[in-house]
Amino acid sequence: MQHQDARLSATRPIITLTTDFGNRDGYVAAMKGTLLSIAPEAQIVDVTNEVPAQDVMGAAHVMAGVVPYFPAGTVHLVVVDPGVGTERRGIALSVDGHFFVGPDNGLFSLLANRRHPDSIVELDRAAFWLSDRPSSTFHGRYIFAPVAAHLARGRSLEDVGSRIDDITTMHWALPISDRQGIQGWVVHVDAFGNCITNISREAFEAIRENRAFKCYAGNAILDRMANTYARAQPGDNLMLFNSEDALELAINRGNASEMLDIRKGTSVNIVFLDDRQSDGNV
Amino acid sequence: MQHQDARLSATRPIITLTTDFGNRDGYVAAMKGTLLSIAPEAQIVDVTNEVPAQDVMGAAHVMAGVVPYFPAGTVHLVVVDPGVGTERRGIALSVDGHFFVGPDNGLFSLLANRRHPDSIVELDRAAFWLSDRPSSTFHGRYIFAPVAAHLARGRSLEDVGSRIDDITTMHWALPISDRQGIQGWVVHVDAFGNCITNISREAFEAIRENRAFKCYAGNAILDRMANTYARAQPGDNLMLFNSEDALELAINRGNASEMLDIRKGTSVNIVFLDDRQSDGNV
Amino acid sequence: MQHQDARLSATRPIITLTTDFGNRDGYVAAMKGTLLSIAPEAQIVDVTNEVPAQDVMGAAHVMAGVVPYFPAGTVHLVVVDPGVGTERRGIALSVDGHFFVGPDNGLFSLLANRRHPDSIVELDRAAFWLSDRPSSTFHGRYIFAPVAAHLARGRSLEDVGSRIDDITTMHWALPISDRQGIQGWVVHVDAFGNCITNISREAFEAIRENRAFKCYAGNAILDRMANTYARAQPGDNLMLFNSEDALELAINRGNASEMLDIRKGTSVNIVFLDDRQSDGNV
Repeated sequence: MQHQDARLSATRPIITLTTDFGNRDGYVAAMKGTLLSIAPEAQIVDVTNEVPAQDVMGAAHVMAGVVPYFPAGTVHLVVVDPGVGTERRGIALSVDGHFFVGPDNGLFSLLANRRHPDSIVELDRAAFWLSDRPSSTFHGRYIFAPVAAHLARGRSLEDVGSRIDDITTMHWALPISDRQGIQGWVVHVDAFGNCITNISREAFEAIRENRAFKCYAGNAILDRMANTYARAQPGDNLMLFNSEDALELAINRGNASEMLDIRKGTSVNIVFLDDRQSDGNV
Repeated sequence: MQHQDARLSATRPIITLTTDFGNRDGYVAAMKGTLLSIAPEAQIVDVTNEVPAQDVMGAAHVMAGVVPYFPAGTVHLVVVDPGVGTERRGIALSVDGHFFVGPDNGLFSLLANRRHPDSIVELDRAAFWLSDRPSSTFHGRYIFAPVAAHLARGRSLEDVGSRIDDITTMHWALPISDRQGIQGWVVHVDAFGNCITNISREAFEAIRENRAFKCYAGNAILDRMANTYARAQPGDNLMLFNSEDALELAINRGNASEMLDIRKGTSVNIVFLDDRQSDGNV
Repeated sequence: MQHQDARLSATRPIITLTTDFGNRDGYVAAMKGTLLSIAPEAQIVDVTNEVPAQDVMGAAHVMAGVVPYFPAGTVHLVVVDPGVGTERRGIALSVDGHFFVGPDNGLFSLLANRRHPDSIVELDRAAFWLSDRPSSTFHGRYIFAPVAAHLARGRSLEDVGSRIDDITTMHWALPISDRQGIQGWVVHVDAFGNCITNISREAFEAIRENRAFKCYAGNAILDRMANTYARAQPGDNLMLFNSEDALELAINRGNASEMLDIRKGTSVNIVFLDDRQSDGNV
């Protein structure tokens, strides 16, 4: 109830949009027209429509860095839907006052991140769908956008679907580690060529115990940890923990992915050195 | 008058934007600044700014799948303008309660789709243009955006131009068919690699008469019709009618354009088989 | 004070966004969530998020063609920040009633264009930053977005920072010229392949004195000046002054950059001919 109040008291309810539809076709705009037909006062924000086609984990990765910066009451519409037309369910759920709507393909379990959603419903009430133009290939417009718009207008989860207890679960694969080192990999390369890994600051620091290290990735060996890109000379590579506390491989004013031959999926091996060497590590 | 009411009663008038300007330059933002300077309460929605340069038919194709999902009273600003600086007219018109503004280059006749617009005006009243910065190369900002903003604020077509009876006409080329088969072609490849043809469900079903068929396109022969992508095994090709009832060639969880070597313009030949063969056809 | 009134009286304050973050990652959306958390009534307009990585001059070039079309009171958030994490300052300033927020990297001096800003402050008041999630690698979200949102809500420059007198200065390199000719270069290639130079109409006309000319650029020699693209035959190259009065090399209905082998940085040499030749020049 509290979150519903947040939505109603806001100047305008926010609906975010995350898809793999691209921006060349009209798919995204058809969804926006549907949203605004039902909730004309909504503020729509594109997170991205350039998720790689059907990359559920990629969408979850992008959303994880975005959701915390939106206010409670925001409705996040996420349509990356390789199973459209199968028996996979459509769902809506709430976590920490944020609402999520989309196919039940595991994405929301990645976002919820070990926390169980506060409430989950299966979207089984056609009264909240786009009645005049059903479509078996485009549930984003036919089912998910209308439901998101109704939630933004203040409808409750229980209005738009029937309560269920669980959703399809996916897990982020974690790096392997022992006292000698950590083996993880690159999960995302951003527009600057910065390479974000699945190695967290917490995991790194727990094993490191202040030892020097070598990090093997692509064609490079990195041994420098910095607080910011600019700590290295322009052109030098460096490692840092980004604003989400994930280990990132970067080049100051350069493109690490291209220069170091590192892509999404490239393994990243960190070896800790027992004979203390400072090697410029901070 | 009725549609004008729709605009005034809406929380905020909607203006959609379809251009071939791309998103790297400032052209689109200059138009949005112009729109908001005149109609600060407008809600602007990009349909796409990635129409291939000067591809009037491509813009019409995208818009056709988008317009029906916006509410009556929406103003659609469409600037794909190979003839800027020639004697081609600027026009505004209304169809089914939607308003359209842009150059008279045939695009609106493709959208209106055999229906005659309810009202058409030529944009000949400079009082509604951007007076302080005339431009002979950028009518999108100088003429069309200001006019769209004035329409969004409730001005009538007759306010912003002089009534005319007809617009430049273009036609969608239709497939050729006889009892043996249909020859059409691919008119659009979407971001997933799905290949959308100019063959409608209606035309297909009228000729098919429940016969089996072979569809020749690119490097493939397809003979399977499905309701959804997921009806085929992952990796298998299939044919379906999309949410606009156009025949589409696709691969479940794959990129049909790349795998089948099909592009925009590739011909699609369907041959119906008289000795009934079921061949997995639904 | 006058500009503050403009912001308050507007239906919704406008915040524009110019970055090199791209649209694939969640960086832009995280900034928008931050903006809307503080200023839920704001209208956010992307200028572009596709500035080439760390290209400060490229961002200034795009902004220069956009800012004049937004109303006074608009807050322009510009985050192209190769120096993030160094001692470079964060600043906010006002010019002609427009507000600008971002790193002090020279960009704003290019925009102000010889005019001194009306007021400049250094962003040194952490009370206006995102307190719960500081970041040394992403000041766009941590510092600049919150400050922009507070300005949009009506805070004054003096509220969010301490007054300073000067900003880091960069200069647009100007073409070289004498009575015989002008040597400039291409500063931007737009989505159509039009090549925009750093040669202004004013500089060109001052030297030309009505003489014929030859313009050498890429693989072409151009000698035709037109008012609009359509003055040339389709496929023919031409020169014109664009809506910003900069000399532009173009091909009617073609891509001049590709056809003439001209890129950003390509030199453009204009030689004026003393024995009057008309050569089709207008």
